[in-house]
Amino acid sequence: MRIVFSVGDIHGIGPEIILKSFLKLRETGHSFVVAGSYKAMEFYLTRLGLPVELELVSDVSAVEGLCATHCGVLPVLSVAEPTQVKPGVISAEAGRIAMLSVAAAAELCRQGVCDAMVTAPINKEAVALAGFRESGHTGFLGKLFGVDSPCMMFYDPVSELRVALATIHEPLERVPELIRTMDLEGFLERLALSMRTDFGLAHPRIAVLGLNPHASDGGVMGSEEMAAIAPAIGRAARSVQVEGPFAADGFFGAGRYRNYDMTVAMYHDQGLLPFKVLAFDTGVNITLGLPIVRTSPDHGTSFDIAGSGKASERSFYEATILALKIARCRKEES
Amino acid sequence: MRIVFSVGDIHGIGPEIILKSFLKLRETGHSFVVAGSYKAMEFYLTRLGLPVELELVSDVSAVEGLCATHCGVLPVLSVAEPTQVKPGVISAEAGRIAMLSVAAAAELCRQGVCDAMVTAPINKEAVALAGFRESGHTGFLGKLFGVDSPCMMFYDPVSELRVALATIHEPLERVPELIRTMDLEGFLERLALSMRTDFGLAHPRIAVLGLNPHASDGGVMGSEEMAAIAPAIGRAARSVQVEGPFAADGFFGAGRYRNYDMTVAMYHDQGLLPFKVLAFDTGVNITLGLPIVRTSPDHGTSFDIAGSGKASERSFYEATILALKIARCRKEES
Repeated sequence: MRIVFSVGDIHGIGPEIILKSFLKLRETGHSFVVAGSYKAMEFYLTRLGLPVELELVSDVSAVEGLCATHCGVLPVLSVAEPTQVKPGVISAEAGRIAMLSVAAAAELCRQGVCDAMVTAPINKEAVALAGFRESGHTGFLGKLFGVDSPCMMFYDPVSELRVALATIHEPLERVPELIRTMDLEGFLERLALSMRTDFGLAHPRIAVLGLNPHASDGGVMGSEEMAAIAPAIGRAARSVQVEGPFAADGFFGAGRYRNYDMTVAMYHDQGLLPFKVLAFDTGVNITLGLPIVRTSPDHGTSFDIAGSGKASERSFYEATILALKIARCRKEES
Repeated sequence: MRIVFSVGDIHGIGPEIILKSFLKLRETGHSFVVAGSYKAMEFYLTRLGLPVELELVSDVSAVEGLCATHCGVLPVLSVAEPTQVKPGVISAEAGRIAMLSVAAAAELCRQGVCDAMVTAPINKEAVALAGFRESGHTGFLGKLFGVDSPCMMFYDPVSELRVALATIHEPLERVPELIRTMDLEGFLERLALSMRTDFGLAHPRIAVLGLNPHASDGGVMGSEEMAAIAPAIGRAARSVQVEGPFAADGFFGAGRYRNYDMTVAMYHDQGLLPFKVLAFDTGVNITLGLPIVRTSPDHGTSFDIAGSGKASERSFYEATILALKIARCRKEES
């Protein structure tokens, strides 16, 4: 397998966690390449004094020629170079390089040169300063591949917890209407398909949480469970193993998520609050529904510790291991 | 101290957890009394074969006469008696007895005959069948004492986690407007006062969560943080140690709640999802803002295991220990 890392915001911890992860990954027999800035990678390598050798790669054909083990050298495809590297600073230049790296990594996967991409964190403000309309990975990749609604899923390899979000970065006020009007049935069917192709689960069991407190207690607090969620579950259940809507508050505390391969949360905090408590620093983010494989760590750019050597590579490493697994799964499936 | 237990729904696990808790509590030197049905208490005592002796108490003056240790006998003030006891069955009769018990327990506290009340769980459906308009403890007690907005707080004595809810049993769709229009400043000030009088914290530190994902990322996803929550925090901060609004998703996972005495969640699931994961079976519910002390376990009637002997008394026991502490704190304060 060959995995491409997009460098993320070069003023954040991206380059550091890539280098630290590579130290653990280089003996796996797989091949790795960074899409981003050679100058930034060299800057952090020198500053942190890590025992990694970088190699400047100028074009895609050179990436194709890279052998699997490659003697512990980490190749860097230079996508764009900054005038200066300034850890901890929000800048349009870093935002531009971050997104060009994502686009280049996606292209390497589209062409089949790489089998999966792992994205280091970007800063939404820097990306917006650079003039990009889509400031998040999920939306950007969705547009790039013409996929209407890619799904954000979180996975913790330690607890085997999988959480998917029906809505993502929406104001809370908009969520109830989105849930009433979205194609939740299709969403559940696509999730089940992803579980099969990406995780090798032939008959995935899916749990769906309610939107309102106590899943509305039979309609006493809110209407979405009876009007939209339960009917969608009923229709999807003809072809998929899916149950709910369950009262969200006790679902994780009581460990009920362990009876399912995947839990669907209705909105951002409903899924991520329990996930971040249960997954500690091993959580991984996956974009489902794309023609390529993309994973990422479950944290941000951490500008406050950029360049200090304090960043933990744990989540980025786990994201890479998962990318390798999913890529293998898809190959076996096809 | 003298604590009164309201029996809760006699078809649920209330009588069982009261009896089991009493076995642990009777050596504490405090006095305990059940407000409810003698017949129901006797039914479960016989069925479970627990080494407790019950004593029928007919009126309030008899409760006043009870001595502290009382030789391990548990007095039961008969408030109303059922025609039959049917574990696991939702019935209007059980709903009526449950609420009359709550009212009787509250009256014992109001008169100063008891120092605190601990309420066993009730079933909202049974209470509604019995014709009560307020189907929850918090609202019922608020009306009884003429308190407009009693506050629901959750406490875990093991992790020392305290979570208060700005809104409680509301459809999610109503929450943003409630947050925009409520007196959040006054709410925060009342919380700080409760922390002082009930927990003996002279300078409580309060954290406030945002409503929207990432606390709206500076207004990108929702307006409530900038329009309502941050200004209310700013005003309350003149007299109270309060910070926020914080992005909710990572707040608990990163352990940031440990830097505060109390975390304020904007809605039910935002507070209870992480609480129930972190507190396991030791969580306790407290109603703040009432002239009397009221705590309760952090679980429901569990009709499915009523009468089986399988119910854990852990949370009810912890609720009683906390009620004793708060009652002592209030006495020292006054």
